Amino acid sequence: MTLAKTTTPGYSSLGERLSSPVITRLMSTALARPDLLSLAAGFTDTSTLPRQAVHDAVGRVLSAAGGPAEALQYGTNQGRPLLRALLSGRLAELDGNQEGCPVEDDSSFFITNGSQQGLSLALQTLCDPGDIVLVEEPTYFVFLELARGLGIDVRSLPADSNGRVDGERFDRQLADLDEGGLLSRVKAVYLVSYFSNPSSRSLTEHEKEGIGEVLSARDIYPAIIEDAAYRELFFNEPEPSRSVLRLPAFQGFPLLYTGTCTKPFATGLKVGYAVCPHEEWRSKMLHLKGHQDFGTANFSQAIVEEALRSGAYDSHLRRIRGDYREKMETLHGTLLDAGLAALGWEWKRPDGGLYLWVRAPEAVDTGIDSSFCSRALDEGVFYVPGELCFSEGAPRNFLRLSFGSLREDRLTEAAMRFVRAAAAQPA
Amino acid sequence: MTLAKTTTPGYSSLGERLSSPVITRLMSTALARPDLLSLAAGFTDTSTLPRQAVHDAVGRVLSAAGGPAEALQYGTNQGRPLLRALLSGRLAELDGNQEGCPVEDDSSFFITNGSQQGLSLALQTLCDPGDIVLVEEPTYFVFLELARGLGIDVRSLPADSNGRVDGERFDRQLADLDEGGLLSRVKAVYLVSYFSNPSSRSLTEHEKEGIGEVLSARDIYPAIIEDAAYRELFFNEPEPSRSVLRLPAFQGFPLLYTGTCTKPFATGLKVGYAVCPHEEWRSKMLHLKGHQDFGTANFSQAIVEEALRSGAYDSHLRRIRGDYREKMETLHGTLLDAGLAALGWEWKRPDGGLYLWVRAPEAVDTGIDSSFCSRALDEGVFYVPGELCFSEGAPRNFLRLSFGSLREDRLTEAAMRFVRAAAAQPA
Repeated sequence: MTLAKTTTPGYSSLGERLSSPVITRLMSTALARPDLLSLAAGFTDTSTLPRQAVHDAVGRVLSAAGGPAEALQYGTNQGRPLLRALLSGRLAELDGNQEGCPVEDDSSFFITNGSQQGLSLALQTLCDPGDIVLVEEPTYFVFLELARGLGIDVRSLPADSNGRVDGERFDRQLADLDEGGLLSRVKAVYLVSYFSNPSSRSLTEHEKEGIGEVLSARDIYPAIIEDAAYRELFFNEPEPSRSVLRLPAFQGFPLLYTGTCTKPFATGLKVGYAVCPHEEWRSKMLHLKGHQDFGTANFSQAIVEEALRSGAYDSHLRRIRGDYREKMETLHGTLLDAGLAALGWEWKRPDGGLYLWVRAPEAVDTGIDSSFCSRALDEGVFYVPGELCFSEGAPRNFLRLSFGSLREDRLTEAAMRFVRAAAAQPA
Repeated sequence: MTLAKTTTPGYSSLGERLSSPVITRLMSTALARPDLLSLAAGFTDTSTLPRQAVHDAVGRVLSAAGGPAEALQYGTNQGRPLLRALLSGRLAELDGNQEGCPVEDDSSFFITNGSQQGLSLALQTLCDPGDIVLVEEPTYFVFLELARGLGIDVRSLPADSNGRVDGERFDRQLADLDEGGLLSRVKAVYLVSYFSNPSSRSLTEHEKEGIGEVLSARDIYPAIIEDAAYRELFFNEPEPSRSVLRLPAFQGFPLLYTGTCTKPFATGLKVGYAVCPHEEWRSKMLHLKGHQDFGTANFSQAIVEEALRSGAYDSHLRRIRGDYREKMETLHGTLLDAGLAALGWEWKRPDGGLYLWVRAPEAVDTGIDSSFCSRALDEGVFYVPGELCFSEGAPRNFLRLSFGSLREDRLTEAAMRFVRAAAAQPA
C-alpha cells in the first residue's frame, strides 16, 4: 500500500506527547536476544511459574459443578465479586485486620489489566496537561513515562541521602509552588512504598504520615496513589507498615491503592486490582475503563480467584519467596565476591522485591547511550539505566539489576559479566 | 473514612466529559436480575462456549514439550508473533487471498484487550476534543460513548432509507464542513461493515469504495476504522466484500481494521486484534498501549493461538454458526408468529451477527425512560433502546434485540414477553 497520497493525519497533542515507552524497548530487547543475559526486565522466573496450579485451577473453573462455563463469558467492568472479596480480605490481613475499617468494603475494589492499568486510569482521570504529580527519587520508570505521555509535570519529593522524604524541604517546595501559583496544580503524590521498583526500599508508616501531614498543614489534599505491586514478594517477613488506606493522617485525601496478582502468581495472567474508597474518583476511573475495554478478561480473573480460594496462590507464593531470596543472595554474593564493591560500587541487600539498586562511582555514566552500557552489552548483559527512574536532575551513576527472571546459574554468569564490564570501565 | 476535609480533586476536563457508560449499566442489569430475560446484552451463549476446547488448549499450552511455562510469563506489548501470523493468514483468507497484498505482513497486527481497546487507542491517538468522526446511522453505541467521552464531535454519514450512504448528500456534507472551516477536523470514518452491531447490515465493496471516493475527490484522507467484530459470525456464507485494507479506493488513507477472537470463540478470554499498515499511527497506538497496560494477558493469547493452530477454533466456530442461525430463526419466528409484524413492527432477517434491528411504529418511544421500556421490564424482558445507536437526531422508535445469550426455550419466552409488551402499548 502506497501512502504517497496520504495527508498526515492530525495526530492529537496527546499523540505528539507520546514518547517511545522504554518498557516496551527493554522487553523486546530481552526477548529478542537469547544470548543476552538480562538483568533488566522485571520479569518473574519462568522456571518457577505455577504451571500445575494454573492447570488445576483451570480444570476446576471449567468443570465447576458441571454448570455452564461462565468463566468463558464476559464479566463485568468492575470485576468478579468473589475475587474482589478475596482480595479485600487479603489486604485487611496484610494491614493487620484493623477493625471497622471501611476500605474492607469490596465495592471499593476493581480489577485491572495488571496494576499498570490502575495507574493509567488514575492519571487520566486526575490530570490535565501541566498538572503536577510528586514522586519519590528514584521511582518506577514506567510511571514516569506514563505521566509524561499525558503532559504531566512530574516533580521529585525532596529526600535525604537515604531516600527518605525530608519534611522541611518538602514544605519549602510546597511554599515555592504556592508562591508560583502552582499549588492547586498538584494533583497527586505517587508512592511505591513496599520493596520499591527500583530501590527495593519500603516506607515506614511514620514516613508516609509525615508526607500527609506536610500536605494537610498547607491545607491541600491531592490524591495519594500507593503502588504496592511488590508488597507480597517479601523474603522473610511482610513489611510491617500499613497501607495509606488505614493511616489517620490520610483521612482527608482521595486514596488509591494498586496491587497485582501478576507478580506474586503468574505474570501471563495480567490481573491487577485497585482500591479506591473515594466514590467519585472510583466512578470516573470505572467509566473510563468502561470506554477503554469494559472489563478485564473474565477467564484470567476466574483462574486467580480459584487459586486464591483453594490456597494454591499462597502455597506458590510461600515457595517463590524463598526462591527469590536465594536468587537475590546469588546475585548479591556473586557481585561482592567478584569484586564490584571493591571497585567502589554500592548497593543494599533488599528484604523483598526483585531488584538490586546499585550506585556506581560518580565518574561512571550508566546511561543507555554510555560507553559502560555498550561494554555491558558487549559482555552480554543488560540492565536498567538509573537515569530512567528520576524525574529531574537525574544522576548518571545508578542502575537497577533484577534477579527475577534468570535461573541461578545464569544469574551467576550475568553477575560475572557485569563485574567484567565494571572492571574494564576507565576510572 | 470521612471525606469531609477533602477538597474536590481537580478532575480533568477528560474526567468531566465522561458520561456513565451505558454498556456497563446494561451488563450489570442483565447480570444482576436473573429473572429478567435479556435480549439486550451482546453476550454469546454460555451453553455453547468452548469449555472442552479451552481446557485442551490450556493443557497443551502448559505442557508444551515439557518446556518452561512461557505462556504464564509476560509477553510483549504488540502480542504473540505466532498468534499475529495466524490472524494475518485468516484475514488474508477471508479477503480471498489477494496476491501481493502487503497487509499480510503480520507486523501490522497487534493484540488488544478485545476489539474495544483497539477502537479506544485509535481515537485517543487521532483526535483532540472538537475533532469530527463520521459514523453510520445506526452505529455501535459503545463507540459513540467512547468518542463522546473524548469530546469528539460525532456526525452521521447521510444515508438512504436502507442505511446505505448517500454519496451526493455525503459530498454536500463535506462541502458544508469545508465552508464552516471544519473539513480539517474530520479525523476518522468509523464503519461497522460486517453484520453490524446493531443493524446486522453489511457494506458491499461498492458502498465502501463510494465513501472513499467522495473523500478523496475532496482531497481529504481521514483515518478509516473498519470494525469487523462480527465478520466470522456469518450463518451460511461469509460476506463477500473484502476489507478496506484491500480496496484500491482506500490506498491513500490511514487504515485500521479491528477484529476479535472473543465473540467467535470465548468472550471471557478478551483477545482482540488490530491491523494498521500505517506505521506512524500504529506506532503511536502501540506506545499508548505501552503506557496503559504494556501488553494483553499472554496466557489468554496463548490459548487462542493454540486453538487457532489446532483447528479447535474453527471447529467451534462452524458449530456455533449453526447454533446462532437457529437461535435467530427462533427469535424471528416467535416474534412473527406472536403477531409483532401485524402490530406494525418491522425487521429484517440477518445473515450473521447476533442482532435483530427492529423498527417500532412511529408512535412508539422505545427509550430507556419510556413507558414501553417500563412495560417490557414489567413483563421481564430487556432490550437495547435504538436511540443509543444514533449520533444525532435519534429516532425514538428503534431497538436492538440480541439472540446471542439466551437458550432456545428462554429465547422463545423472551420473544413472547416482548410481544406482550408491544401489544399492550397504546397506539
